[in-house]
Amino acid sequence: MSLSSLSQSAETGQKLAVLYAPIAAELAETERVFAEELGSRFPFVQLLVDHCADFRGKRLRPALVLLTGQACGQLTASHPVLAAVVEMIHTATLVHDDILDEAMVRRHAATVNAEWGNETAVLLGDYLFTHAFHLAASLESTLACRWIGRATNLVCEGEMQQVHNRGNLDLNEDDYFAIIRGKTAELTAVSCRLGAHYAGADEGVVNALENYGRDLGVAFQIADDVLDIWGEERVTGKSLGTDLEKQKLTLPLIRLLATSDAATADRVRRLLVESSAENRRELRPYLEGSGALDYAWQRAQRSVAHALNALDVLPDSGAKTILRTMAQYVVRRTS
Amino acid sequence: MSLSSLSQSAETGQKLAVLYAPIAAELAETERVFAEELGSRFPFVQLLVDHCADFRGKRLRPALVLLTGQACGQLTASHPVLAAVVEMIHTATLVHDDILDEAMVRRHAATVNAEWGNETAVLLGDYLFTHAFHLAASLESTLACRWIGRATNLVCEGEMQQVHNRGNLDLNEDDYFAIIRGKTAELTAVSCRLGAHYAGADEGVVNALENYGRDLGVAFQIADDVLDIWGEERVTGKSLGTDLEKQKLTLPLIRLLATSDAATADRVRRLLVESSAENRRELRPYLEGSGALDYAWQRAQRSVAHALNALDVLPDSGAKTILRTMAQYVVRRTS
Repeated sequence: MSLSSLSQSAETGQKLAVLYAPIAAELAETERVFAEELGSRFPFVQLLVDHCADFRGKRLRPALVLLTGQACGQLTASHPVLAAVVEMIHTATLVHDDILDEAMVRRHAATVNAEWGNETAVLLGDYLFTHAFHLAASLESTLACRWIGRATNLVCEGEMQQVHNRGNLDLNEDDYFAIIRGKTAELTAVSCRLGAHYAGADEGVVNALENYGRDLGVAFQIADDVLDIWGEERVTGKSLGTDLEKQKLTLPLIRLLATSDAATADRVRRLLVESSAENRRELRPYLEGSGALDYAWQRAQRSVAHALNALDVLPDSGAKTILRTMAQYVVRRTS
Repeated sequence: MSLSSLSQSAETGQKLAVLYAPIAAELAETERVFAEELGSRFPFVQLLVDHCADFRGKRLRPALVLLTGQACGQLTASHPVLAAVVEMIHTATLVHDDILDEAMVRRHAATVNAEWGNETAVLLGDYLFTHAFHLAASLESTLACRWIGRATNLVCEGEMQQVHNRGNLDLNEDDYFAIIRGKTAELTAVSCRLGAHYAGADEGVVNALENYGRDLGVAFQIADDVLDIWGEERVTGKSLGTDLEKQKLTLPLIRLLATSDAATADRVRRLLVESSAENRRELRPYLEGSGALDYAWQRAQRSVAHALNALDVLPDSGAKTILRTMAQYVVRRTS
């Protein structure tokens, strides 16, 4: 089972509660800060904020802030604030992503664009982004604003590259990794960097944990992309095949095109260009037969291995064990 | 002539250059910081950034940062940075506004949404917002991030209220002023607050200049709304009547509906609901005959008078004179 499907059922919700037990109080405080910061005197704005609070599932990024902090030393009053900030940034990107993807449903609720239109979704995302920075600026130094600003720039840049390359069937692995390191891995990386730094870790440990977060994010995104092609909708709780529909080339397809003979590559390209449910089904045997899906899983596993290695700088602790478990979850395939 | 049309011609461009002469060096430095901060290693992202740099015309907000600073004391190295930050926030709102308004042209160039699609426009706006905060966090204290964060929250809230009230023909003056104080006046207010504070002004002066900026912004928005109904497209360089088309109630119409007899109000409401070019033309005599347009101009003039009063805290100086002139420009009608 991948992290992307971890919280789709009551059972996995319970698993998460167990996993996060050592940071339960700080996660609750994170929720309180999140809700308090976003309160609005306008009922309409409050309604929107309450609605999109339900989009958040795994609390992955806040958990990373808190667990890396705990693994490095003592959590401080800054940690729940930072955890709320990264979750707000993440929520803003979800609201804006749903516009880009023309998505109608997220976590069994209507998306903001589906319910209130693109205009409201654009503005709500902006509201969440700017609140995140407002909240980050409540801390003593500008460091958090600076790091989160930098990470968010790279997230946007990665997303713009992705949109720009839609339909580009010549996208190569380097391009793909540049995109996912930006759009997904920067935010998990900075979450860990912040958690470690604000617990007083030295620069070497802070950098190691940032690398852990980056590799975790890369593995997480590869797994998400594989599941988009190969997962079961029932289990993942998302509509799948949307990357193919949007002609968004992900690792399995890049690998398939790079390793196929000319005739097969031509056939695959045609199936991608004339995207339809039937053509997408026809792609599956190519992906499986060529070993391209396995290759993508192996790349995800390699990133997980790097993430686990990065944790070696830490002394053993309960929090370290949970960080290991989180990385390992990413590449457990949905059975 | 209103500020909204000030820079539409070479002639007014020259007028602005004369007006801004005492801050010419700092405006040039602002441009340099703006371009440097937004540089991207991705050619596509750089192309977008360069394109939207052309949207900026009057440099109103950077000029306010620099002139209020100069009027309060000495400009510092922080001032061009702050000026670039508020201009970046403003540019982000323009890029996102063009999505909301489905606008095709801005300052004689294609909008980002028209040229590259809504998706790219959403992300480019996010990129500009987050860069603004990243840059603000390069200053020594968190103050700028905090104030700009708060102002930008209120801008988004005002815009969300405006979208929410589209088609609401019962919108009253209080609602209208709450919306424009948010969406327009908060950013001019915070520009002046920052300019004064970073020049070492005491709290009383900082607050007075914030009020100047807020009243200037309110007057500016009323003038813009009146010109949307009543301006000449040739002079303003914008497509007009878009507020009516979008059933966005602005001050002249709110006044007209509030002061008309029942039969007239009914007729006006019908013309608004069934919006067409012909119906919009039919509205004009009602607006003029009722004195509603004059009323709106008087409200704008009252805000300008407040803005001018707020400047009384300052000693006489060249910068103070320019701040006075800028406020007076706002209510010079296009002849």
